[in-house]
Amino acid sequence: MMKKIILRDDQMPTQWYNVVPDLPNGLLPPLDPETKEPMGPEKLGAVFPMGLLEQEMSQERFIDIPDEVQEILKIWRPSPLVRARNLEKALGTKARIYFKNEGVSPVGSHKLNSAVAQAYYNAREGVKRLSTETGAGQWGSALSFATNKFNLDCKVYMVRVSFDQKPYRKSMMQTYGADIVSSPSEDTHIGRQIREEYPDTAGALGIAISEALEDAASRDDTKYALGSVLNHVILHQSIIGLEAKKQMEIAGDYPDVILGCCGGGSNFAGLAAPYLPDYLEGKKIRFVGVEPASCPSLTMGKLAYDFGDVAQMTPLLNMHTLGHDFIPPGIHAGGLRYHGMAPIVSAMVRENIIDPIRVHQLECFEAGVLFARTEGIIPAPETCHAIRGAIIEATRDKDEPKSILFNFSGHGLIDMASYDKYFSGELHNYDYPAEDIAKSLARLPKI
Amino acid sequence: MMKKIILRDDQMPTQWYNVVPDLPNGLLPPLDPETKEPMGPEKLGAVFPMGLLEQEMSQERFIDIPDEVQEILKIWRPSPLVRARNLEKALGTKARIYFKNEGVSPVGSHKLNSAVAQAYYNAREGVKRLSTETGAGQWGSALSFATNKFNLDCKVYMVRVSFDQKPYRKSMMQTYGADIVSSPSEDTHIGRQIREEYPDTAGALGIAISEALEDAASRDDTKYALGSVLNHVILHQSIIGLEAKKQMEIAGDYPDVILGCCGGGSNFAGLAAPYLPDYLEGKKIRFVGVEPASCPSLTMGKLAYDFGDVAQMTPLLNMHTLGHDFIPPGIHAGGLRYHGMAPIVSAMVRENIIDPIRVHQLECFEAGVLFARTEGIIPAPETCHAIRGAIIEATRDKDEPKSILFNFSGHGLIDMASYDKYFSGELHNYDYPAEDIAKSLARLPKI
Repeated sequence: MMKKIILRDDQMPTQWYNVVPDLPNGLLPPLDPETKEPMGPEKLGAVFPMGLLEQEMSQERFIDIPDEVQEILKIWRPSPLVRARNLEKALGTKARIYFKNEGVSPVGSHKLNSAVAQAYYNAREGVKRLSTETGAGQWGSALSFATNKFNLDCKVYMVRVSFDQKPYRKSMMQTYGADIVSSPSEDTHIGRQIREEYPDTAGALGIAISEALEDAASRDDTKYALGSVLNHVILHQSIIGLEAKKQMEIAGDYPDVILGCCGGGSNFAGLAAPYLPDYLEGKKIRFVGVEPASCPSLTMGKLAYDFGDVAQMTPLLNMHTLGHDFIPPGIHAGGLRYHGMAPIVSAMVRENIIDPIRVHQLECFEAGVLFARTEGIIPAPETCHAIRGAIIEATRDKDEPKSILFNFSGHGLIDMASYDKYFSGELHNYDYPAEDIAKSLARLPKI
Repeated sequence: MMKKIILRDDQMPTQWYNVVPDLPNGLLPPLDPETKEPMGPEKLGAVFPMGLLEQEMSQERFIDIPDEVQEILKIWRPSPLVRARNLEKALGTKARIYFKNEGVSPVGSHKLNSAVAQAYYNAREGVKRLSTETGAGQWGSALSFATNKFNLDCKVYMVRVSFDQKPYRKSMMQTYGADIVSSPSEDTHIGRQIREEYPDTAGALGIAISEALEDAASRDDTKYALGSVLNHVILHQSIIGLEAKKQMEIAGDYPDVILGCCGGGSNFAGLAAPYLPDYLEGKKIRFVGVEPASCPSLTMGKLAYDFGDVAQMTPLLNMHTLGHDFIPPGIHAGGLRYHGMAPIVSAMVRENIIDPIRVHQLECFEAGVLFARTEGIIPAPETCHAIRGAIIEATRDKDEPKSILFNFSGHGLIDMASYDKYFSGELHNYDYPAEDIAKSLARLPKI
């Protein structure tokens, strides 16, 4: 009885899978906010390198992973597929639960898969510096690691509340050589403007995105990097699902249910997308996207064109959204506090391929502690959502011998403060603030 | 070109290697402090279970790893052997540098290898509760994980300065269900006594050991667990070297130099010991133990009988020691701040098999940052010492194409505060306090 399935370095996939051409009824294009016309690569080229824009628009089903990227991914990939037998036993279920452990990456999460690729394409085109935002710090750490590998400078705008609460994240980025500033900062117009208007603001992901975008747009040597939402990010994350397919085959099993937590959508889609062709050919798979009850873009949002940031600097994306100026309640899963959702995930919900569900903060931490005490690994607060979803699936009918596969997107060792608060009873459930959502949805751009 | 060598679950060793019968001129026995006679299992049985005492005294070269222990080790083992090509390139050396990555364990270090085994043997003999001490927190986290797996209660006495400075460690232990208290505590006689005498004390490992020993000796349901130094701990850690031997063979290489950092000695001996038979048969291997300049038990201490703790509650061990009441300067590698050294390691130094070297705090952090920026993984402050040692070996003659293998004992993600202090210039070098050492050596027990 194998506990986990490990692939050798030379079994790592050498191509990414692009789900876009396989999406039933396709994707709607991003729109230029001014003209409301589809936005071409020429305008996006101000903030993204062509290599990534080509991937963003690509209709190719498979795209080669450059050798230089493969070499770096092999520092921690292929990641293990683990059978959660102890969790199964604790739940008293006949379900077989598997998880793909993305927590083994040096920065502790799946984010590194895309960061390495993004740094590579930028470096290849002569870019000298990348700007980005980070909320909980996972993406900022990942991009700091990746830019260091390709000798790029890196500027990270970190949401103020996280900057103050998570000094370890800051030190990690510094260790990889990045430049970190608390957002809103004095370094951009938009930052200075917000600091003047709201000196006590805790910051927000939407603000930090605006700052990073302004930074990139105002300097010739700098491009911008986004850690989720976009098609090219999900392309890079497809390596998770491609490996999992091989590993499940070695395990002699096939997933009946595939789950992941959903913030911007990239970790879930990375695992789920490579299974879409099987599904379209008739395989019965239930895809379950697990989102926080406090920020339920898939279950309570609208499928519409919206901005990705507060300052309305991004193109308009067709996605499930709670409105670009919606500020989610302060749950500890910072990576899930985003008003929108990847267009790819949104399209899969639109086509009824993905079933979204909502879960509350406390039941997620409870699931995380049970997981730590059975499988031994302490999950990130975001990952607790996926675990909670897997437990719901495994216990709905305990006698049903189904196979469940979820993405263990990251470990929680750098987020232990949230567990501390959970144990001391300082954490609360937040339901979605229905009125706030209604208000921000009323302010959606008119198309 | 493989980046790393991974073994499958079914390639994990099923026996530990016991180096004791192979040590030239053997080990001197532990002595009863009162009678100065060799101490038998009957007296040690008050604090250790028979299963571990048998291992402590064993002359068998190979001992089966129980199935229940194997199953838990497979959560993260076999651990990867990685070729540090990027570090080699940065150093401009022809040396081939390999490291065994013990940082992949769920608690982030090699300590878990012994914690799982110790919890198993205690549980098998009906023990209900374990007490232990922890300095930096690595061992406390590991034992919390392991006791949870075998349904034992766990009480951790954590050195006060670490308890206050490392809240994440405390939260980790809590997540695994352990009971943690700041040491000196109100829960033991010795703790209360020290608090009364020195209300402002920062605590020390020697004090915490005394508290944990008192706890175990005063309760029928409780035994004591030690994370390093003893023979059975090094036995459990031998799995590191046994795996490494298989992996180096797959890599088609053989180590000319084997290194590890030395605190109590278990991580270094775990890697090195399984290579001793080859060495005794004539293989040329240089074993290098790297210790902090501030706490140089191997290079500046005396090989003598000494206590393992401040309160003189342990048996007398024949080891390299700086004196049981020596308090090392406050370097950040808390796991290396111990006055003594494993009798096994001490014997290998005595026989000129191990070459000990001293390194300073700042050069170690410098090495750690270089490692993070080349190999991607942020090392624990203790592990930085091994890396510094490897760099010294690899750059002494850069044109010498030798093979270097070191133990990457743990990652630094839960110790990022020390990196923060390194970057802000708050860390200093400490040389050994020669006068303090002379004084404490003068107080060695008379045999």
